[in-house]
Amino acid sequence: MTIRWSIEPAFPTTPSLTNKENCIMPKTKNAAPVLMVGSVALDSIKTAKADKPRLLGGSASHAALAASFFAPVQLVGIVGDDFPKSYLQLYQRHGIDLAGLQVAHGKTFHWAGEYEVDMNRRRTLRTELGVFASFSPQLPDTYVRTPFVLLGNIAPSLQHHVLDQMRNPRLVVADTMDLWLNTALGDLLKLLRRIDVLVINDTEACQLANESNVITAAARIHRLGPKYVIVKKGEHGAILSTPAGLFLAPAVPLKKVVDPTGAGDSFAGGFLGYLASCRGPLENHLRRAVIYGTVVASFCCEGFGLSGTARATRAMIEERVRALEKLVRF
Amino acid sequence: MTIRWSIEPAFPTTPSLTNKENCIMPKTKNAAPVLMVGSVALDSIKTAKADKPRLLGGSASHAALAASFFAPVQLVGIVGDDFPKSYLQLYQRHGIDLAGLQVAHGKTFHWAGEYEVDMNRRRTLRTELGVFASFSPQLPDTYVRTPFVLLGNIAPSLQHHVLDQMRNPRLVVADTMDLWLNTALGDLLKLLRRIDVLVINDTEACQLANESNVITAAARIHRLGPKYVIVKKGEHGAILSTPAGLFLAPAVPLKKVVDPTGAGDSFAGGFLGYLASCRGPLENHLRRAVIYGTVVASFCCEGFGLSGTARATRAMIEERVRALEKLVRF
Repeated sequence: MTIRWSIEPAFPTTPSLTNKENCIMPKTKNAAPVLMVGSVALDSIKTAKADKPRLLGGSASHAALAASFFAPVQLVGIVGDDFPKSYLQLYQRHGIDLAGLQVAHGKTFHWAGEYEVDMNRRRTLRTELGVFASFSPQLPDTYVRTPFVLLGNIAPSLQHHVLDQMRNPRLVVADTMDLWLNTALGDLLKLLRRIDVLVINDTEACQLANESNVITAAARIHRLGPKYVIVKKGEHGAILSTPAGLFLAPAVPLKKVVDPTGAGDSFAGGFLGYLASCRGPLENHLRRAVIYGTVVASFCCEGFGLSGTARATRAMIEERVRALEKLVRF
Repeated sequence: MTIRWSIEPAFPTTPSLTNKENCIMPKTKNAAPVLMVGSVALDSIKTAKADKPRLLGGSASHAALAASFFAPVQLVGIVGDDFPKSYLQLYQRHGIDLAGLQVAHGKTFHWAGEYEVDMNRRRTLRTELGVFASFSPQLPDTYVRTPFVLLGNIAPSLQHHVLDQMRNPRLVVADTMDLWLNTALGDLLKLLRRIDVLVINDTEACQLANESNVITAAARIHRLGPKYVIVKKGEHGAILSTPAGLFLAPAVPLKKVVDPTGAGDSFAGGFLGYLASCRGPLENHLRRAVIYGTVVASFCCEGFGLSGTARATRAMIEERVRALEKLVRF
């Protein structure tokens, strides 16, 4: 695989928001662009060991950074005028196109949550929607023909609204969560008929399919629309379900999870970014794409907010992919 | 791998309990014998769909049947005089040596339990120890030099008592459960210094190591004695931890789990039985042994009591191992 340093963003960006010279990300040569829509948030995260206020977070941020290791990324989201400039610079260093990032008068979406000692349970302490409450994703003209689309975890109606603006995307991936299963099921079911890949966690997959068995749940979700279903199982890995059968992906065995916030978004972003960098039929690359998503998610878990992902390099990702190959071989 | 039908048990058995002609099990040529000690029980199992009284169960029964696909098995346990003859015949059909099975005056150990709909939670409805309360495992002379030993899930003091009688076993595997962590920790810690492989589930591993992270927990358990630690994660597979590193084993993706009782015991039995059938350094075969244990455990889950395992054949096991290889390849 040939890798080059991307000096020129593939797509125009708002000059005030993107500084081309600062981009540190090598992209895979000829990788297609990927569009990421989702939340851009300030996350205040509390664990047993630390308390970190107002970190850069949100589904679009995590997914965009994860995808940026592999492909040019276009970010669609909204922030308030309190959004720190240093966070824009972080996007810029990853070569992320910010033409689709709206800056509105008001406060950036703020989420505060707390993890229990074992890191598998968290509770929301506070949600302040701010400008996100009135978010209506508008795609710049330069985005509407982007071939790879990730509809990050936001209200299904907004995911529809983005799709309505796209012209013939090659692959559409959607992420969702229990909130939308409980409050916007009709919209979500309609969305499932418009997407290629659903990324969903295990308990949500069971809820959506009304099934207690994850394998059966995945099979049922196919009938709702998506040709490909990825069931995320956190520290237990992921299951990719395709018409050709299943792929059982391990998680990276981490001795220390610092902050798992955004790991699922990073997974989806890494998965799609990797696919956008592949040649030939996508079917041939799905398994490795799941592994790349898994590996980027593992870096995400190793630091608060986006710091773990931001510390990673493409070489570190490749090394961890090779390590994972050895860990599952028999 | 050459397979032959075992007509002659490798070791003498109590004539009244074993009928050589009935053995249906092909063994791997030259497989070494394995000794299984544990509970032999009558299990009354309730699920959302069925209620099955007094099935053949217990850790030794599940482990013995699982191992019998690969190697000659010696069973050490105790039953009451109410123990159904048909269950003895089941052992016999699997060529299991019953010279170490004591028949005592009284009732066989009876366990009754109920599974919730999702099959991951169960509760004990009743435990009647019967003759098991006075169980003191006594090895026939023909067992004391058996090279492969599985100390199934019984009180650590009984596991010690078996080891005290063995002469230079090649590999000692022990299984345990939270009950012994809570009531016999001292004995268990002493046992850990005498065994080669500990098989334990994820929550118990964390409890034993006083750690919330499974990977770190496994690392800590090594320091308590066992060179090899296998952490069972049920439907999420298993982790083998060795001085050379980790192996991440998937579980067989089952669309329907009928009854998971004994799956962990089947795993341990299949693991050790397979190792006993291998030539050369055991280190070279550990990963595949975990996979064979996983596969036998998957058959166990597909029927009530031992019926799923009893329906399996070596050919079915090999087929499922090959299928699992394809499911994890990337």
